[in-house]
Amino acid sequence: MTVTVIGIGLIGGSIAIALKEKGLTQKIIGVETNKEHVRQATELGLVDEITDLDDAIQQSQLIILAIPVNAVEQLLPRVLDKIDKQVVMDVGSIKEGILLAIEGHFKRSRFVATHPMWGTEYSGPQAAVKGAFTGKATIICDKHTSDNDALELVENLYKELGMHLVYMNAAEHDLHVAYISHISHITSFALANTVLEKEREEDAIFELASAGFESTVRLAKSNAAMWVPVLMQNRENVLDVLNEHLSQLRKFKACLEKENYDYLQELIENANKITKIIK
Amino acid sequence: MTVTVIGIGLIGGSIAIALKEKGLTQKIIGVETNKEHVRQATELGLVDEITDLDDAIQQSQLIILAIPVNAVEQLLPRVLDKIDKQVVMDVGSIKEGILLAIEGHFKRSRFVATHPMWGTEYSGPQAAVKGAFTGKATIICDKHTSDNDALELVENLYKELGMHLVYMNAAEHDLHVAYISHISHITSFALANTVLEKEREEDAIFELASAGFESTVRLAKSNAAMWVPVLMQNRENVLDVLNEHLSQLRKFKACLEKENYDYLQELIENANKITKIIK
Repeated sequence: MTVTVIGIGLIGGSIAIALKEKGLTQKIIGVETNKEHVRQATELGLVDEITDLDDAIQQSQLIILAIPVNAVEQLLPRVLDKIDKQVVMDVGSIKEGILLAIEGHFKRSRFVATHPMWGTEYSGPQAAVKGAFTGKATIICDKHTSDNDALELVENLYKELGMHLVYMNAAEHDLHVAYISHISHITSFALANTVLEKEREEDAIFELASAGFESTVRLAKSNAAMWVPVLMQNRENVLDVLNEHLSQLRKFKACLEKENYDYLQELIENANKITKIIK
Repeated sequence: MTVTVIGIGLIGGSIAIALKEKGLTQKIIGVETNKEHVRQATELGLVDEITDLDDAIQQSQLIILAIPVNAVEQLLPRVLDKIDKQVVMDVGSIKEGILLAIEGHFKRSRFVATHPMWGTEYSGPQAAVKGAFTGKATIICDKHTSDNDALELVENLYKELGMHLVYMNAAEHDLHVAYISHISHITSFALANTVLEKEREEDAIFELASAGFESTVRLAKSNAAMWVPVLMQNRENVLDVLNEHLSQLRKFKACLEKENYDYLQELIENANKITKIIK
């Protein structure tokens, strides 16, 4: 089949690589407004052709939106306006807002809402990598609202990429990703700002940053163009989690202020239970 | 030379491996109170012999303390009491308390205070790995308080391990590590507790945890026996940094509450400058 990828960045580019590698597509068409990204995507051979939206849709059986979630909200209704029997899917980190934007659309059932749980802190076509999705989960939201053939095409695509499927509704999805992804980004951004604030005049110290620091702060390199819309759209869930996180941090603060080291030990031993989530 | 390593865990065990690999020692003696660790260290061949402190000191030219910082404070004066011309070094994450504990000791100048900037979230002899320190920095504190020959022996040892040396006083050291290591551990512990609190009845969601989440939370596996004493001894610096971090997090909270997305973008773009510290 011919596939259009709208937005040839980290995710769109990595999907393009994977679809080609698995032989799932004969032709990948890129739709991209950023001229530098067009140049890079072409140079890297991520797409077979760059064209405009109308032409791309007409040529394709599958259209994948891999742009920031605010852009998905704006563009998705327009894409659905233009399609006939094609299947449309997104890969965005937030689902409620996107689904609200196309509620009642006469082509709603040609759309499948998905969120492959893979990413890095880098962005743009040059960040695209081979083998990106293998072994990870993809969440498919509100699957009953998609046509069977559309759902099946998307499910098969992700399975061919070596992913396993998890189903939930959009509200559950948005809450869970606040916990397992969005709060990590906020803590990492805030940690970066904490250190940059303090160490601004002490470049020498930066060489000491150990692997542990790098690990907790690496998400702070993530792109504002992607993350502002995500946090905006998931505002209420993220605020809930952030409040909980602030209260957990204040427990550590209270332990140190009151020199209550038994409780500090208890807090750390409780945190060690995270091994049941990450091995 | 013959080297005694007191505490054959993650760091002590990894040093033992590195010293052997580089041909810096003919014999490594382990001093270890934990019987399970003695068994594991022997099985793994990390040490040539396990013996008691007096015997070990008498046989050795170099004694390395690789035990939690509270244990260093207690044991180090006793070790210095027993030595003649031997060199003694520690590898602890905090320096002021340790140096205070031996201030004015008649063998003070045989001691070199060091902190190799390497570690993982695991502990015990089985966590020891080959090639652990290569390419990293080691901080040496208050070097003017050590005898020249003692300092030279320790400097050469770290250089042979492929590390580069950074010198500072103990107070500077303790402040910097609060920023580049201790706060990372607290945010990671608190993040783990945040997620565990919320997701306690939803095991299914854990499989969704992505690489980004794993990265920010992996330090939460770190051992309380090591970290309670570190945070206790660096209490004031850690509280300063934690207060700064809480205030940075509250900026993100305020952005979301007030829907001030321009400022949110500014905060994220500032955080992106962390690339000047971690590439």
